[in-house]
Amino acid sequence: MGTNQLQTEATTVKRLPARASYERDEAYAVLDEGLIAHVGIAVDGQPFVIPMVYGRDGDRLLLHGSVASRLLRTLDTGTPVCVTVTILDGLVLARSQFHHSMNYRSVVVLGTATRLGDPAAAAAALECIVDHIVPGRPAEARPGNDAELRQTTVLELPIEAASVKRRTGGPIDDDADLDLGIWAGVVPVHLSIGEPVPDPDLGDVALPASLDPYRRP
Amino acid sequence: MGTNQLQTEATTVKRLPARASYERDEAYAVLDEGLIAHVGIAVDGQPFVIPMVYGRDGDRLLLHGSVASRLLRTLDTGTPVCVTVTILDGLVLARSQFHHSMNYRSVVVLGTATRLGDPAAAAAALECIVDHIVPGRPAEARPGNDAELRQTTVLELPIEAASVKRRTGGPIDDDADLDLGIWAGVVPVHLSIGEPVPDPDLGDVALPASLDPYRRP
Repeated sequence: MGTNQLQTEATTVKRLPARASYERDEAYAVLDEGLIAHVGIAVDGQPFVIPMVYGRDGDRLLLHGSVASRLLRTLDTGTPVCVTVTILDGLVLARSQFHHSMNYRSVVVLGTATRLGDPAAAAAALECIVDHIVPGRPAEARPGNDAELRQTTVLELPIEAASVKRRTGGPIDDDADLDLGIWAGVVPVHLSIGEPVPDPDLGDVALPASLDPYRRP
Repeated sequence: MGTNQLQTEATTVKRLPARASYERDEAYAVLDEGLIAHVGIAVDGQPFVIPMVYGRDGDRLLLHGSVASRLLRTLDTGTPVCVTVTILDGLVLARSQFHHSMNYRSVVVLGTATRLGDPAAAAAALECIVDHIVPGRPAEARPGNDAELRQTTVLELPIEAASVKRRTGGPIDDDADLDLGIWAGVVPVHLSIGEPVPDPDLGDVALPASLDPYRRP
């Protein structure tokens, strides 16, 4: 494991630095809870931001996509990338419109990605990505075969330069607004998991162990 | 309202074009349902992707932030921007690891943003952003004053070049995998709203009308 401090000049948060952290364990907690990353690259100065699934294995972020993907092919040239994962925790309603805000946790990882050329390493990384979304699932589903691996580009991004930013707690109103009689507080939000919907062709196959946490109480 | 087709060379989806759309009404449905945008800019070839709240007024996306924000100051120079909004709808579990997927809807808007210098236009845009997050809230909370407006940069991005991409439905497994006896289907996910938590200093102020939809049944 690298240093615990992920701060670099590029990852230093300029606005509201009290909300920032560069601790590896805080970054990993957000990366492990999130499901979707927004991956940014620039092509001739034009940024493109694309949602992607991902995984984390130790100090590496893992990304994948079709070998035909323009984004993946560009990443494979060593172009700088930014991977951002955001978890929304609440809507913050203040007495003034100005102090309305969001509670959230986000991680920004900067670096360059490298393609995993070794088939065994690529296959392990793909299992890690599936396991990130549904823990335990790789043991249940058919593993990738050679033809599928050849259709897939797998990239690793070392987590060495990153920042965490988060806001928690209630609204911070001006003192002069406290007695206006306007409701203020936080509306919590979170991602909810619904009842699994079996494939119509499934037949008599029971819900797998990996989906236990997703069953409604 | 501009043309209904938002397709340009830069917004043309290359991978899985059957999942793409360039219709204005489809893009607006996603933008109006989303809460957080991931905003990307490039500085000397290094992309930065930052989560932001936003609003939509007709054919404009509205963004705001502190006048001290590096991102906002960079946008104000007319640098190309990419604004991406993603709504996750489900985890798609296939019999093979390879065919695991996500159901989602996402919009990518490309363009350049312009600062709203007119105070009345900026104030109206800020109300639009608050109203996007909690419809009806601007009528309840204290409006911004001149000092607050001076601390805020408000930008508009014309929605003229964009793409929508979405996946719906169940897993698409290989025929050879259908009889493996492995569970396959979709786990729906959605953003859930919790019980509002009043500010400790609130006193005897009732929950406002804007939060009616957020009350638990």
